[in-house]
Amino acid sequence: MGRRILVIGGLAAGPSAASKAARTNPDAEVVLYEQGDAVSYGVCEIPYHISGEVKAEDLAAFTPEKLRTTRRVDARILHRVEEIQPGRRVLRVRNLTDGTSSEERFDRLIIATGSRPRRLGLEGEESRNVFRVKALDEAYALRKFVGEEHPRTAVIVGGGYIGMEMAEALKSLGIDVTVLHNSGLPMKALERETRERVREELERNGVRFVGMAQTAGFVRGKGGTVTHVVTGDGSFEAGIVVVAIGVEPNSDLARGAGIRTGVSGGILTDQRQQTSADNIYAAGDCCEVKNLVTGRQAYIPLATVASKAGWTAGENAAGGNAVFRGAIRAIAVRVFGLEVAQVGASGEDAREAGFDAVCETITGWSRVAAMPGSERITVRLIADRKSQRLLGANISGREGAVLRANTLAVAIQQKVTIGEMQQWDLAYSPPFAPLWDPLLVAANAMQKKLRTP
Amino acid sequence: MGRRILVIGGLAAGPSAASKAARTNPDAEVVLYEQGDAVSYGVCEIPYHISGEVKAEDLAAFTPEKLRTTRRVDARILHRVEEIQPGRRVLRVRNLTDGTSSEERFDRLIIATGSRPRRLGLEGEESRNVFRVKALDEAYALRKFVGEEHPRTAVIVGGGYIGMEMAEALKSLGIDVTVLHNSGLPMKALERETRERVREELERNGVRFVGMAQTAGFVRGKGGTVTHVVTGDGSFEAGIVVVAIGVEPNSDLARGAGIRTGVSGGILTDQRQQTSADNIYAAGDCCEVKNLVTGRQAYIPLATVASKAGWTAGENAAGGNAVFRGAIRAIAVRVFGLEVAQVGASGEDAREAGFDAVCETITGWSRVAAMPGSERITVRLIADRKSQRLLGANISGREGAVLRANTLAVAIQQKVTIGEMQQWDLAYSPPFAPLWDPLLVAANAMQKKLRTP
Repeated sequence: MGRRILVIGGLAAGPSAASKAARTNPDAEVVLYEQGDAVSYGVCEIPYHISGEVKAEDLAAFTPEKLRTTRRVDARILHRVEEIQPGRRVLRVRNLTDGTSSEERFDRLIIATGSRPRRLGLEGEESRNVFRVKALDEAYALRKFVGEEHPRTAVIVGGGYIGMEMAEALKSLGIDVTVLHNSGLPMKALERETRERVREELERNGVRFVGMAQTAGFVRGKGGTVTHVVTGDGSFEAGIVVVAIGVEPNSDLARGAGIRTGVSGGILTDQRQQTSADNIYAAGDCCEVKNLVTGRQAYIPLATVASKAGWTAGENAAGGNAVFRGAIRAIAVRVFGLEVAQVGASGEDAREAGFDAVCETITGWSRVAAMPGSERITVRLIADRKSQRLLGANISGREGAVLRANTLAVAIQQKVTIGEMQQWDLAYSPPFAPLWDPLLVAANAMQKKLRTP
Repeated sequence: MGRRILVIGGLAAGPSAASKAARTNPDAEVVLYEQGDAVSYGVCEIPYHISGEVKAEDLAAFTPEKLRTTRRVDARILHRVEEIQPGRRVLRVRNLTDGTSSEERFDRLIIATGSRPRRLGLEGEESRNVFRVKALDEAYALRKFVGEEHPRTAVIVGGGYIGMEMAEALKSLGIDVTVLHNSGLPMKALERETRERVREELERNGVRFVGMAQTAGFVRGKGGTVTHVVTGDGSFEAGIVVVAIGVEPNSDLARGAGIRTGVSGGILTDQRQQTSADNIYAAGDCCEVKNLVTGRQAYIPLATVASKAGWTAGENAAGGNAVFRGAIRAIAVRVFGLEVAQVGASGEDAREAGFDAVCETITGWSRVAAMPGSERITVRLIADRKSQRLLGANISGREGAVLRANTLAVAIQQKVTIGEMQQWDLAYSPPFAPLWDPLLVAANAMQKKLRTP
């Protein structure tokens, strides 16, 4: 069947969906439209490009040429889709190079329009030394600015995980870094004690963390360049400003076509990634996704979710029958020497979702305690008293925290009980893990707590 | 109830059982007999003590005094139990210090007599420069011998994981090391390609590996010290010899009391760790255990299994009702710079157990490929075509192999299917894991193979 599958968006879910569609149906014509001038680059690698750890040429996994030749996807950069007409199965596409507009017919459409960084809405936010960490051109511009103008001071507005990564990246370049955050501790989604540890790690590495900071405005100097960021509690010198206050779904195009969206503004889909409109699929940061812990729709804009949802959308648009069950929200971040991970629900999430949430924290060792290099690991578990299921966890430490969190990520998805966790037969070897791995120590402590009424 | 609980054996399962029993029933009198002069030491740490990484004082987790004061366990070292009389509920115990013998009454008995290293049965095996790696006194003697006599050459008989650890330890001391193994490649329980990688790592680090070697005898010099190990293919100079050819259960005492044992010679118990005799429990290396992958009884002499089985025996002997479901066989070892792990069944195990075993191998990256420090990781999965379940895995690499294997260990225990694995929402962060973690890459490759008839 000569099916024409169009894909809007070239970052994460889009190329994933397009590639899978072309592979699923070798007869399909797959065209991908991207309004920017690059496809398939690693947004999550941008902080490591800024620090110099990842080279520019390693940021993009695919060029349009490579998508065409190796994946049979006709990727058209600098093409903006301006309208979806679901009834007529037509897109209106603007060629940004020559300004012309055309109508493109589709049999199946995949919307992968992603997300955009939230803005503060303050005057001066578009100054040449104010950056966000999302688009590739902005990343290059930021790196160029730092390389050429050697700012001595940086203010990062936002203390989420991208704020943490950018604090480390800029500090590693010798810049004096201040993080402004609208909560008392960084990384709101984490548990309090993990957040305290993150703040300590920032401070130990010379980053100033300013909690409960309300960013009120920018002071600009000559040429309109920002010189200070003003908050309710004073102003902070800023040779460069990074705004990292989260993202929101790019769902206007879909909404304009009458496609249903959720409370977050993200497009709603079923588990086959189909939207409320016939023949139209969606995936990635423009969508909501089912939270596998709470069972509710949630906005989880992560590349891991986007790539899997993209595969599913691509396979189904090409006539397959794939299912993407949802996500638990699994996040890892390096904050200088500290590994921090959060998987599944926080205690607060769990209570809000109606669970009788029980939390317990233990400290263990990354290796046998007496082995050189062994580091303290803190594990906090969140479980449901009624079902005894593991709902979420935080792990932090200087070694072996993130990969252990991934073991718990699997446990959460497989609906493991704390009693089952206690029975886990894990490999033990002095250079890698103690006899009682921190995960088992945590399970035993939690079981004790669950038995106490 | 004034219950008297006796425990035979002070290494891993014994102290675990005794401590748990004392905690479960605060009125119980718990007495532990150990024929050696130390309790509760880390056999698995011995190679790292030989290399100097772990100090002597860190080898023992508990002294008899500490067991008494912190765990309320009356630990009696240098006491050998010579007979169990189940009908009379009496032990005959020899005090090795003064040579006296006494009868000790019990309400409940826990047998934790452990294992003993296998012997070659060759003349010269008891020479002063031939060692095994199991008992604490022998470890100290080995370290003393190396420190005082500076052997230039070592022969390790046995290429299992303890042989690997000892090769690294002795090599790190500047000794020229030869490993003799009765199979063509080291570490029989691993898959062929992992074994090849281990051999390469040995050779890359200057250890001579001699496969298909049948150790035929020892040549002795003055004072009876061994100078050469003789095989069918020549003899090898040996200033020191380590025999590491596995262990066998110490179950003679139990068998003498009419307690049932399995084909391996290990004591048979139910999931409550009760033996065939009333009021008598057993745990640890002297026992068989249920293999959770094959569902069959197996001999898995590992400290991780012993400690959990010990807890269960202790709790039940004290009137509780705990269950130890069994083990999957989870092993990790460091071979110089290489992390090697095996969890669950090998392809051969799986076929022998009647599964339609499908194996697939992939290579991925430990971090985002472009990040400094990222290393290749090889993942080999073993799955069952019929149930689509994951049965086992090998993972090797210079970083992040062992902790990823533990994630698969959990998956095997939770009877996860490959389809479920593909959906895993794992944390992704450039310094720790790529977007498609090697575990997901492996699951996708296996799914493709399972779909091919």
